[in-house]
Amino acid sequence: MVRIAVTKSAAALLFSLLAASGEAAQSSGDALPSWNAGATKTAITQFVTRVTREDGPDFVPPAQRIAAFDNDGTLWVEQPFYFQLAFAFDRVRAMATQHPEWQTKQPFKGLLEFDMDAVAAVGENGLLEVIAATHAGMSTEQFEAIVRDWITEARHPRFARRYAELVYQPMLELLGYLRANGFKTYIVSGGGVEFMRPWTEAVYGIPPEHVIGSSGVTQFRLDAEGRPELAKVGKVEFINDGPGKPVGINRFIGRRLILAFGNSDGDLQMLQWTAAGEGARLAALVHHTDAAREFAYDRRSRVGKLDKALDEAVARNWLIVDMKRDWRSVFPFERQPSTVGSSP
Amino acid sequence: MVRIAVTKSAAALLFSLLAASGEAAQSSGDALPSWNAGATKTAITQFVTRVTREDGPDFVPPAQRIAAFDNDGTLWVEQPFYFQLAFAFDRVRAMATQHPEWQTKQPFKGLLEFDMDAVAAVGENGLLEVIAATHAGMSTEQFEAIVRDWITEARHPRFARRYAELVYQPMLELLGYLRANGFKTYIVSGGGVEFMRPWTEAVYGIPPEHVIGSSGVTQFRLDAEGRPELAKVGKVEFINDGPGKPVGINRFIGRRLILAFGNSDGDLQMLQWTAAGEGARLAALVHHTDAAREFAYDRRSRVGKLDKALDEAVARNWLIVDMKRDWRSVFPFERQPSTVGSSP
Repeated sequence: MVRIAVTKSAAALLFSLLAASGEAAQSSGDALPSWNAGATKTAITQFVTRVTREDGPDFVPPAQRIAAFDNDGTLWVEQPFYFQLAFAFDRVRAMATQHPEWQTKQPFKGLLEFDMDAVAAVGENGLLEVIAATHAGMSTEQFEAIVRDWITEARHPRFARRYAELVYQPMLELLGYLRANGFKTYIVSGGGVEFMRPWTEAVYGIPPEHVIGSSGVTQFRLDAEGRPELAKVGKVEFINDGPGKPVGINRFIGRRLILAFGNSDGDLQMLQWTAAGEGARLAALVHHTDAAREFAYDRRSRVGKLDKALDEAVARNWLIVDMKRDWRSVFPFERQPSTVGSSP
Repeated sequence: MVRIAVTKSAAALLFSLLAASGEAAQSSGDALPSWNAGATKTAITQFVTRVTREDGPDFVPPAQRIAAFDNDGTLWVEQPFYFQLAFAFDRVRAMATQHPEWQTKQPFKGLLEFDMDAVAAVGENGLLEVIAATHAGMSTEQFEAIVRDWITEARHPRFARRYAELVYQPMLELLGYLRANGFKTYIVSGGGVEFMRPWTEAVYGIPPEHVIGSSGVTQFRLDAEGRPELAKVGKVEFINDGPGKPVGINRFIGRRLILAFGNSDGDLQMLQWTAAGEGARLAALVHHTDAAREFAYDRRSRVGKLDKALDEAVARNWLIVDMKRDWRSVFPFERQPSTVGSSP
């Protein structure tokens, strides 16, 4: 009990520092100060002006101003591999003493020995097995506490920053700008919904009920004292990726988006579905072109592969954000050095 | 195209009449004028006061003021059988010419011949078959147009009113009262989510993204012209009833409710899950006790059976609304005779 209380206050500290840097960026006259002037920034502000001008032909009532963002690679970094995998790998190490069989079983053995070739050799199904083994067998509330701990403590191998600091400052500004213009902002991610919800409100201003993601099966049960709980049983229920994204949007929101932002082929169908709606629509991609400040990758990347969606974006004139050209700054800590990165 | 446009305007007319009667009720000083003074009404207003008083011990921030309502039997009538079944039966009759095999196959044959004993004999699985046959094989948008048509035209066998007029005036007032106090109001129903979403915003003020229900599998596909659509394939995906309700709430909202309202055993686990949360919680049941104005049923009803949940409500001191005693009026049309019921 005490442990959770301490954790929550540490998380609150981290989140308040992050939130503060996001808000400071909004206080200038320009709502998007981390976006360089140019065609990309103009396309965004012109779209918002079109749909919010009450006497204009493209006006959209606030209730229908639904915008959705992919998470990995669109709102935060996804290299060298999805942060949820880093979380799962850390969980394997934390749980290893209770699982002596992992000392000899791949990919667990490889993870414990930092043998990433052995881990990679098991492929995607092996990674799903790791996620199932580390995300299940507990209540949803226990899992939430573990995620909060991890997001407060774990650090990225290259940037040596906490993962929730590796969010894109221009996208934080865009989220705030849209909400200030009456949009509802959602996350529509292939990542696990219960991995995101504990921190999206503090970091992005996106509440749990606006987070759509992949999910595992949960079961309602009464515990030994007759208290109800939801148990995570370690079975995949829904993969919110690729064609699953419009399916998930229809299931959770029940209306089409008017704005969708992604960065990979996993976002293709969400963007198609959005762009095909009647009236003004904005379908957009973040193109990772900046190896110096972040990463540069697209068609041949194992993580966040952007190939078909890039072709379709060009063919259909979707907005393509060139990170190197369009973003004046990438991360909140570049703009406003805080004590977060240097604290122990 | 024209047909849909006409339908939408007819629906808009119906909905505006309904919405008008709801709002008129709010304009007096009492936000709940259709609730008789007494312990039930006091319990509701005291709960809202407790959680909204900023300096009180039970204060709940607005973001966490999540209230959910079952639909059938809690917000609108569910007798003599769920309105979605009436819709499905009407669809069977409308689609019969395209399905000659239904002339000899139960329960379709029974439905076409108004032989309700034959229909009842097939049991719940037979009814699910009817729903699958009538709700699938089309896009989500085609289905939505059909629901809009039906809700605008079809009438209830006893009241000879359109189904969307058979909503409970006291509950409309309660929804408005909660929203005026910073609550978000959700529907958490065993009914089909795509059957409810086309009309819940106009009738209850509850937007599509706040409607959680049972769902069928949908598939993303490109049609013959390359336009994306979501196809309903006629397979059950999720039953949002009984233990499925807390599961659905966790999946869609990701936080516990602080207020839950149901009326049957299908709401038991939602109420248990709500009541077990920390802090002030309100778990409540509508008890159908008024055969004169509506219906009277509980433990032995085939539709909306209230048995275990009634025992648990008594044992745990949940709020039990006695329709006959607690509701001054039941339907909007009792309070404010409109032209809706008498128009052709």
